[in-house]
Amino acid sequence: MTGAVQEWQLFARPVGRPVPGDFRLVERELPPPADGEVSVRNTYLSVDPYMRALMGTTESGDLAYGLGRPMTGGAVGEVVESRAAGLSPGDLVLSDLGWRTGAVAPAARFTALRRVEGVPDSAFLGVLGMPGLSAYAGLTEIAKLREGETVFVSGAAGAVGSLAGQIARLRGAKTVIGSAGSEEKVAYLTGELGFTAAFNYKTGEVRKLLAEAAPAGIDVYFDNVGGDHLEAAIDALTVDGRAALCGAISGYHATEPPPGPRNMIELVKKRLTLRGFEVGDHAGLQPRFADEMGGWLAEGKLTFRETVEDGIGSAVTAFLGLMDGRNTGKMVVRI
Amino acid sequence: MTGAVQEWQLFARPVGRPVPGDFRLVERELPPPADGEVSVRNTYLSVDPYMRALMGTTESGDLAYGLGRPMTGGAVGEVVESRAAGLSPGDLVLSDLGWRTGAVAPAARFTALRRVEGVPDSAFLGVLGMPGLSAYAGLTEIAKLREGETVFVSGAAGAVGSLAGQIARLRGAKTVIGSAGSEEKVAYLTGELGFTAAFNYKTGEVRKLLAEAAPAGIDVYFDNVGGDHLEAAIDALTVDGRAALCGAISGYHATEPPPGPRNMIELVKKRLTLRGFEVGDHAGLQPRFADEMGGWLAEGKLTFRETVEDGIGSAVTAFLGLMDGRNTGKMVVRI
Repeated sequence: MTGAVQEWQLFARPVGRPVPGDFRLVERELPPPADGEVSVRNTYLSVDPYMRALMGTTESGDLAYGLGRPMTGGAVGEVVESRAAGLSPGDLVLSDLGWRTGAVAPAARFTALRRVEGVPDSAFLGVLGMPGLSAYAGLTEIAKLREGETVFVSGAAGAVGSLAGQIARLRGAKTVIGSAGSEEKVAYLTGELGFTAAFNYKTGEVRKLLAEAAPAGIDVYFDNVGGDHLEAAIDALTVDGRAALCGAISGYHATEPPPGPRNMIELVKKRLTLRGFEVGDHAGLQPRFADEMGGWLAEGKLTFRETVEDGIGSAVTAFLGLMDGRNTGKMVVRI
Repeated sequence: MTGAVQEWQLFARPVGRPVPGDFRLVERELPPPADGEVSVRNTYLSVDPYMRALMGTTESGDLAYGLGRPMTGGAVGEVVESRAAGLSPGDLVLSDLGWRTGAVAPAARFTALRRVEGVPDSAFLGVLGMPGLSAYAGLTEIAKLREGETVFVSGAAGAVGSLAGQIARLRGAKTVIGSAGSEEKVAYLTGELGFTAAFNYKTGEVRKLLAEAAPAGIDVYFDNVGGDHLEAAIDALTVDGRAALCGAISGYHATEPPPGPRNMIELVKKRLTLRGFEVGDHAGLQPRFADEMGGWLAEGKLTFRETVEDGIGSAVTAFLGLMDGRNTGKMVVRI
């Protein structure tokens, strides 16, 4: 929106776990929108694990956050002023112009959203947004889940994991197993989300905990964690098993390369497929995803939680909390 | 064949690298063939890396060699006596009744072969047999090689690798890079087999050697080695790259799990696919494979070498030599 906005900038590239001093909150005057531009007031900002990678030096190439430059990320907002066809004041829009209270930008940077009855606007950053599409694409396109299969989801209480487990169930998986980092989260998975079984990975070796939860093995693994979770899943996968690799939060702060799975030979023995993916490649699924997820939401078959932090000032705290697993479901910042 | 045959038996399960004392050569009397059976005199036996796994304890389940039992493996032979329809004395046949000079067994255990002009019978254990089909299936079905791509083959002077590299070239790869374990093998790859570039992995870090040979990265990796080769290939693969995992000779004698690739996060960042396979699942490709490979052979577009050891007594020596990389191309034993 025109006038003063606050925005977060990357001040120093984090080494290991980011600290608050790596970021600074800056006030800026925005010009009025030029021809073809709109001004938007953000109402919800997204913090996501992938942002850690963009804070690194060369790792993410052109996408990396510049030092002393505004950071980007998912945001839901309302059009305040428009000098572009197709967008009017009051319209709900999605953009990647997060980490700030408002923005002035060409209309092409914004996607108009249609509010869904009974669903908060922040859902477009979660269940109906990028995390939802990640879960959906990973299970259906990458892992090619079939009815009757046994699925293991790591980081299952997170934004993507909690949806991956539910989509697996709704798509006909026989057994859905989840891992999470606290007893409370484990109870959430089996109690509210309908996971068949779940375990707290902090209570023992992932390999043993998974073998107990899935004594006959797993057919599909949805990986949000990497590291020992991935190695345990490779052991548990049965012949022709598939793993969709969505992220590896276990290694995001590593300053040394983390140890890799020592059992890669199992890929040959059991003809396994490991496939990494990024949600951006699967925009073509969006209409089918919106239909199917919207339907499940409307029928009350799919539930989701959000962890909401308040105020632009809390964005860094929210991001660091996400990295520490302090969220259940999607972590968002409400402006 | 009826009468006395010699056969190798597994005497002790090897720990680490097998030693000659793990095996014994036994003489046995065979009965005449019963109804529906044939007796066959073997002329060529195959020794292959996968046999190492079958010598292990529980690793290979039902397929593992029994202690004090005859071992199995690919063999080409001639029918001596037949009491089965469809097979007559003098017919050339393929079976898995190797590691022995002859056998009496039901006709269903043998596949009749048609000799190919100018190609030795042993080729049915190599270029026209299981190693050839492995190379063909791995590149076409598993890695889905496309014209104009850059391919890296490890263990490229071996039975499978030497064919994988040539098939890649004949199927339109722009650049084919190979690794091998001696300067002589490297010269063979670029001089005789038409590889674009090759390196001796014993002269430095695989990661660096591969980066020098393929500065713009690789699109497809055909893995016969595992270990540091696989890690280097994951680094070199470009976006949407694919690896076909055929075997991991680097880890076959390991008594401790070998270190895994420390860069699995690249699978997510570059949307890579790693897929293990076993040739037995791709028998359906056999007709297309036989046509295409036979055609290339007839046109002189595809060359192959064999390392031939003589006499049933040399089978264990041949197998151990294979494990040490003393072969160029397919290692066979001539009876």
